[in-house]
Amino acid sequence: MARDERSVTPQSEDFSAWYNDVVFRAELVDRGPVRGSMVIRPYGYRIWELLQADLDGRIKATGHQNAYFPLLIPQSYMQREAEHVDGFAPELFTVTRAGEKELDEPLVIRPTSEAIIGEMMAKWISSYRDLPLLLNQWANVLRWELRPRMFLRTSEFLWQEGHTAHATAADATAETMLALGFYQDLAVQTAAMATVPGEKTPSERFAGAERTFTIEAMMRDGRALQAGTSHFFGTNFAAAFGITYTGESGTAELCHTSSWGMSTRMIGALIMTHGDDKGLVLPPELAPYQVVIVPIGRGEQAETTLSAATELAATLRRAGIRTHLDDRPHVSPGFKFNDWEMRGVPIRLELGPRDLAAGTALMSRRLNYQQPDAGKVAIPLGEAAERLAAELAACQAMLARRAADFRDEHTVTVNSWPEFTAAVANGWALALLCADQACEDMIKAETTATPRCIPLDGEPEQGTCVCCGKASAYGKRVIFARAY
Amino acid sequence: MARDERSVTPQSEDFSAWYNDVVFRAELVDRGPVRGSMVIRPYGYRIWELLQADLDGRIKATGHQNAYFPLLIPQSYMQREAEHVDGFAPELFTVTRAGEKELDEPLVIRPTSEAIIGEMMAKWISSYRDLPLLLNQWANVLRWELRPRMFLRTSEFLWQEGHTAHATAADATAETMLALGFYQDLAVQTAAMATVPGEKTPSERFAGAERTFTIEAMMRDGRALQAGTSHFFGTNFAAAFGITYTGESGTAELCHTSSWGMSTRMIGALIMTHGDDKGLVLPPELAPYQVVIVPIGRGEQAETTLSAATELAATLRRAGIRTHLDDRPHVSPGFKFNDWEMRGVPIRLELGPRDLAAGTALMSRRLNYQQPDAGKVAIPLGEAAERLAAELAACQAMLARRAADFRDEHTVTVNSWPEFTAAVANGWALALLCADQACEDMIKAETTATPRCIPLDGEPEQGTCVCCGKASAYGKRVIFARAY
Repeated sequence: MARDERSVTPQSEDFSAWYNDVVFRAELVDRGPVRGSMVIRPYGYRIWELLQADLDGRIKATGHQNAYFPLLIPQSYMQREAEHVDGFAPELFTVTRAGEKELDEPLVIRPTSEAIIGEMMAKWISSYRDLPLLLNQWANVLRWELRPRMFLRTSEFLWQEGHTAHATAADATAETMLALGFYQDLAVQTAAMATVPGEKTPSERFAGAERTFTIEAMMRDGRALQAGTSHFFGTNFAAAFGITYTGESGTAELCHTSSWGMSTRMIGALIMTHGDDKGLVLPPELAPYQVVIVPIGRGEQAETTLSAATELAATLRRAGIRTHLDDRPHVSPGFKFNDWEMRGVPIRLELGPRDLAAGTALMSRRLNYQQPDAGKVAIPLGEAAERLAAELAACQAMLARRAADFRDEHTVTVNSWPEFTAAVANGWALALLCADQACEDMIKAETTATPRCIPLDGEPEQGTCVCCGKASAYGKRVIFARAY
Repeated sequence: MARDERSVTPQSEDFSAWYNDVVFRAELVDRGPVRGSMVIRPYGYRIWELLQADLDGRIKATGHQNAYFPLLIPQSYMQREAEHVDGFAPELFTVTRAGEKELDEPLVIRPTSEAIIGEMMAKWISSYRDLPLLLNQWANVLRWELRPRMFLRTSEFLWQEGHTAHATAADATAETMLALGFYQDLAVQTAAMATVPGEKTPSERFAGAERTFTIEAMMRDGRALQAGTSHFFGTNFAAAFGITYTGESGTAELCHTSSWGMSTRMIGALIMTHGDDKGLVLPPELAPYQVVIVPIGRGEQAETTLSAATELAATLRRAGIRTHLDDRPHVSPGFKFNDWEMRGVPIRLELGPRDLAAGTALMSRRLNYQQPDAGKVAIPLGEAAERLAAELAACQAMLARRAADFRDEHTVTVNSWPEFTAAVANGWALALLCADQACEDMIKAETTATPRCIPLDGEPEQGTCVCCGKASAYGKRVIFARAY
């Protein structure tokens, strides 16, 4: 049987094809004309705006201020921090012409803004009184991608990048953890994900960082996805860019800096955390439309139900529920049901002549998980706003629970190599690891799994490396997984 | 006498030096490392966020949706619309390398996004049912600038660009005027400016537009500044990019498109509309801090007044007033007064031991214009929130009135060449003009003034060209001014 043009490849059949079908058919994105580029369409961009509004509130509430720094960075700036340039050189887009003129010094398009913000911090900070300096920027960044994938790896993406400077290592470390907390709270509370906050092993650190922290999310194919990172730089960038301050005693000191970022990649994480065979599943907090109303009826009845649906939509909107009325005259209710299901709308309301006569609307949930009343439920129109607000809250909690259950069911504590390979084949392995890079390399070569993080809340544990059998490092188990 | 490092060159002495002093000393911006680049500092960026929030609300309320399109555009796309490429070629930044690789086709950094959005519209629109397509993007754009000036002309700036496609010329024209209305309302209601909406003469149109509309603002040196533009493209871009739709009768038709933009340039307009010899003057709607509280007192008294000031700040914030408590211990109250005056805060409150004993705070307005109670006013603490809300509303109205009065006082209806040159020397001239480009060119060569717009609400009038004496065109008087 031919598949409906609007339906998607089942997740269980081909996860990668499913993902591509979802992002394009749900009209989240389109391909841009340049290889690796992405157009974020209104339905996808609205999810980004909802993420932005939430995170921006957390960032501002803790005393950070937004600013904006230039896109183009002199090539020489990128070279000041040795690890930083090595890490980013292969990904840089370089501008060599402006107008008709060849530039004397090529400019690179920011892949991240440590270099240019470091330069400005050095200018702005002179005394301990200028610290801490707590900045954030919402911006586009570009990194040349050979194997692009929508939201996950595109040559341009949108993000926020926090950049802060502090007097002491302790202050900068506390900031690094505060920012990690923004991401963890955003992921769990708002995106209903079951992310694990932890520290990266040295091989997985950001180029130039002393410590890198991450939140790792589990996708429904068992892979991990890094959904936000926070870096403690110690004095590395301060030394490279001359970010110094005069202390209370009058001595010149190097600042300690941090940076942290969350990007449109989070939307990819959201899709692969909650989606199912039918398509996208959106948590209410991030759904462009939380409720879609489909009026039903032909001829004169159509006018009556459309008018009642319009009134219902207005009522729900007044109650703060993001509501869409699908009044397209040229497509059938059945098409609309499938369309909004594929596009992940949490709740659908049908309003037909019989419902209207009974003073109700027929509610369908996009997804049921450990919930009673799995079928359609008649909702009295007079109580619709309260009932739906409660449903949306329940839906949000249900998705968070489902994500946590899924993560727990697919995370295995392993003590042997066979157990390890079995675990990372369709989920995460919690393993003891030595500090020898050769073991990480061997594990990656054999299984494609990499150390995702040392979980912050992991129990102290010592033993032998799952790979080589020598004494374990890090004092805890490490999460290994194949990753996006 | 040496000028205080924090004070600014008086506006009356050197307007250009005043502007530069204000933007840097008020910490709105800093120079970036690349020629013509601008760093927008938190105090300046907050103004942009307030402008964004206001305009974004107007854009969304009228059915437009935000999206995001790639920064990099294939060079060949820019060349499809002949006038468009001619207009922008001298300003383009060109990327020729990605990673280690020379690109086969160079990419240009968007100077505006008609080309890439046109390409996507062609893909998305097939039927009349897909129209109108109402898109908006908040983004950075780059245009190489030889004579940069902060906010006004920088190699990179932030803006929104609306792009819409319609079935008919009438629909696209209505959209063009709707968008112009957003800008006019934003400028007048929110920025307290006295902008004049009008149409550009052919020579001043956007590259590729059939008609360009503008809002023109008068700066306090009498020059004009274009603060927002809206373009009707007819079928120019639709033909160049193949944006077609199938009409109800089944025939293929070209769409009619529009685009419209407002940028960080608006902040420059704001500064030069309201500022005075003491520095920046911000309308309350766009002030990062509407009220600054300065606690006064030494030793034990300092603790008491600081605690009362903290409480007052919390009360005002709860009432929705953006309040800053300046509790810097190492600078004097006098320094703080001057600092916040220079930085344009509408209202300052002093809170000293004597005020506290009287249960009041001492209010000073940043600027008085045709207002009674010009000095400091004691405000009962118990009524502070209501009193200040009323003061802020009065301040907003006062600034709008002052801007309109200034504009009217510096706009002269002229009928002769001597009158014309006198008028554009320190303001605007309302003159009749023929349609001959040679007259515009001669006027520009002689006076540096250019036609700013044909005001929408101008009275119908015919006569002779102020320059050549031949029959006038446009059916109305044209505003001429020297412009930023």
